[in-house]
Amino acid sequence: MLREPQQERSRTTRRRLIEAAMDCFSEQGWHGVTVAVIAERAGVSRGAAQHHFPTREALVIAAVDLLGEAQLDELRTRAAGLPVGPSRIERVVEMVLNLYTGPMFRAALQLWAMAATDEQLRAALVPLEARVGREAHRVTVGLLGVDETRDGVRELVQATLDLARGLGLANLLTDDTRRRRQIVREWAATLETRLGGIGAP
Amino acid sequence: MLREPQQERSRTTRRRLIEAAMDCFSEQGWHGVTVAVIAERAGVSRGAAQHHFPTREALVIAAVDLLGEAQLDELRTRAAGLPVGPSRIERVVEMVLNLYTGPMFRAALQLWAMAATDEQLRAALVPLEARVGREAHRVTVGLLGVDETRDGVRELVQATLDLARGLGLANLLTDDTRRRRQIVREWAATLETRLGGIGAP
Repeated sequence: MLREPQQERSRTTRRRLIEAAMDCFSEQGWHGVTVAVIAERAGVSRGAAQHHFPTREALVIAAVDLLGEAQLDELRTRAAGLPVGPSRIERVVEMVLNLYTGPMFRAALQLWAMAATDEQLRAALVPLEARVGREAHRVTVGLLGVDETRDGVRELVQATLDLARGLGLANLLTDDTRRRRQIVREWAATLETRLGGIGAP
Repeated sequence: MLREPQQERSRTTRRRLIEAAMDCFSEQGWHGVTVAVIAERAGVSRGAAQHHFPTREALVIAAVDLLGEAQLDELRTRAAGLPVGPSRIERVVEMVLNLYTGPMFRAALQLWAMAATDEQLRAALVPLEARVGREAHRVTVGLLGVDETRDGVRELVQATLDLARGLGLANLLTDDTRRRRQIVREWAATLETRLGGIGAP
């Protein structure tokens, strides 16, 4: 009888620490943020924080994991409400090209920038990013309803996700929403033309 | 007679400081780097460094300016050697999609990440980035030889540059050359299809 609530509490603590870490990285970058800072932000004692995440890398890995999962969950949930038929592709493209414009991308970008100059962090991030990237690709293929065995389809889906990351960068320092909307429209039309010729069954 | 060599020397000092700054930002990020660190790397006295760049922001602005100009110069120079005819578009796309895969992008990314959490740096970077971005767009339109008054052309050129930045991010922590090559091929075919229908005179 005692175990359940304690496990529950433990999960809540972990979750609060991860969310506080993401807030801290997103707002202050990597350098200013210590485990102690994150613990304080989360309202968790330093000892408890250390118990859950003995190293800063462990906290980063958990955060990136959660970031990726949350983004993919959102994509799946919103996809469930999408129309079928010709208007679908523009809605899917809009969703995918908006993927990296929120606070999660800002937090991830701080980590990437830091990992570019920190070998240990890089080694921790690379396999995680590869996994999240593969999953995002898989979900996008499903949303677009395209056949990846056809020539060129795989590359167009990858390009769509790379474009999304580029648009995330463009949205980092200024609000790029209006310009992005035009690109969504044009890219949806482009995919329709290309995938219609390439990927349609 | 005295003036010329001194001006020359002054220009060399400025240039050395800017290049040292880029090396430092690219390798160590923003936080570890002070004007004193940069001066030492450049082999310039701290006083001389301060004379040329009284604030760290001034050094950043000069560096981003030089980054942008150097990139565009390279683009123009390499473009002069490009073939005309059907193979041209793939070569242009390759050049543009490789734009952000070098050390300059790494340096710029450190600055962007920092600017996302530093209001003063953000205010300095935004107008500069807008100018460099407009110029990159203008050069790319020229290289592709497309007519921007046609519907959709402007957005596809923008998407190409956004994709290039996304590919720069994907190349940050791992060598993404092989995957990028496939995307170049597919993107070139896509632009040919779309711009053939949209932008051709």
